[in-house]
Amino acid sequence: MSDWKNLQELLIKFRDERDWAQFHNPKDLALALSIEAAELNELYLWKDAETADIEKVKEELADVISYSLLIADKYGFDISEIVADKIKKNEIKYPVSKAKGSSKKYREL
Amino acid sequence: MSDWKNLQELLIKFRDERDWAQFHNPKDLALALSIEAAELNELYLWKDAETADIEKVKEELADVISYSLLIADKYGFDISEIVADKIKKNEIKYPVSKAKGSSKKYREL
Amino acid sequence: MSDWKNLQELLIKFRDERDWAQFHNPKDLALALSIEAAELNELYLWKDAETADIEKVKEELADVISYSLLIADKYGFDISEIVADKIKKNEIKYPVSKAKGSSKKYREL
Amino acid sequence: MSDWKNLQELLIKFRDERDWAQFHNPKDLALALSIEAAELNELYLWKDAETADIEKVKEELADVISYSLLIADKYGFDISEIVADKIKKNEIKYPVSKAKGSSKKYREL
Repeated sequence: MSDWKNLQELLIKFRDERDWAQFHNPKDLALALSIEAAELNELYLWKDAETADIEKVKEELADVISYSLLIADKYGFDISEIVADKIKKNEIKYPVSKAKGSSKKYREL
Repeated sequence: MSDWKNLQELLIKFRDERDWAQFHNPKDLALALSIEAAELNELYLWKDAETADIEKVKEELADVISYSLLIADKYGFDISEIVADKIKKNEIKYPVSKAKGSSKKYREL
Repeated sequence: MSDWKNLQELLIKFRDERDWAQFHNPKDLALALSIEAAELNELYLWKDAETADIEKVKEELADVISYSLLIADKYGFDISEIVADKIKKNEIKYPVSKAKGSSKKYREL
Repeated sequence: MSDWKNLQELLIKFRDERDWAQFHNPKDLALALSIEAAELNELYLWKDAETADIEKVKEELADVISYSLLIADKYGFDISEIVADKIKKNEIKYPVSKAKGSSKKYREL
């Protein structure tokens, strides 16, 4: 079994023991994901990246990934496939010849 | 090689071909992650979850996962480990006896 | 008429000409607000604060404030009152003696 | 003195008593704003808009508006002006004839 599937099974077991599937529509899962992303960002607020608390980064990042995995499960997405597909799209949006060394968005390249 | 490692290698190759590591400090990576999370949420704005564009959900979710993988790589985190550890912590914060069927935060249980 | 009321009237006129009140429940308004906040943050992504495009900052900040005003209107909040009340609460959470010169959260002071 | 100016003065007094201007660059202020926006959204998570805790909505919305006012002060923006200007731009992006009754983004109209 793949790494993702294994984690998704742990998350679904945790969810179903608590009877939480009733709350987990994709809109609220995406909202939960962005709230966790904000909690991750809060660890860097008013400071340099180096001084963030690494143990807390682990936890908040784990929360973000957990909701990502639950959303993927909801839609039946294969994570390796959707990420690999998006990288291919980004190779077209950000060709090396134009994007190298630049932090601009593709629309401004 | 694990699924994560495989995707992380694709993402790092994409990044390094464009010489983007210079921009990728954890604070900005976390910021990028939350911007992608907002783009995912925008697909559900003003509507029910069912009417969201699934092809776009795939792309925005892939972006969120990509930045999650880049942050994990930056810190040398093992994704399976940090997610499994967080689930264990959540089992204590949300005991089945109190959390079953409830959408409350652990502080309010 | 107060400044807020004046802007709220402009926003409500804009909304009602387009028959958009049907979409403007507080949950989606709050979601829209956080999406606009992410667009504001994107102007600072991968760069120092000084190099952000000020004309775009104006627009994204205006969007954030607009949704704030629409949410306040939805609930009938008086903006001057809720902000002044929150400052008073923060004076207790962050007493000068403990908080001076520190960027820590009140729980860590 | 305008309502905005009055609140901005209260916020600046609060900030300066704590010597916090050193942390308040626009990038971190925008980040703080989006974290507060996420806290506002959390009040609606897993539930319908009607069941959110209104007293907490007041507080989180006040936080969002406070950071908005501090960002506006940082750049010397006149809030009434930037919001009115943005409404004018939106009147062009969302003409009544096309946008009436539709929740689509301007690019899709």
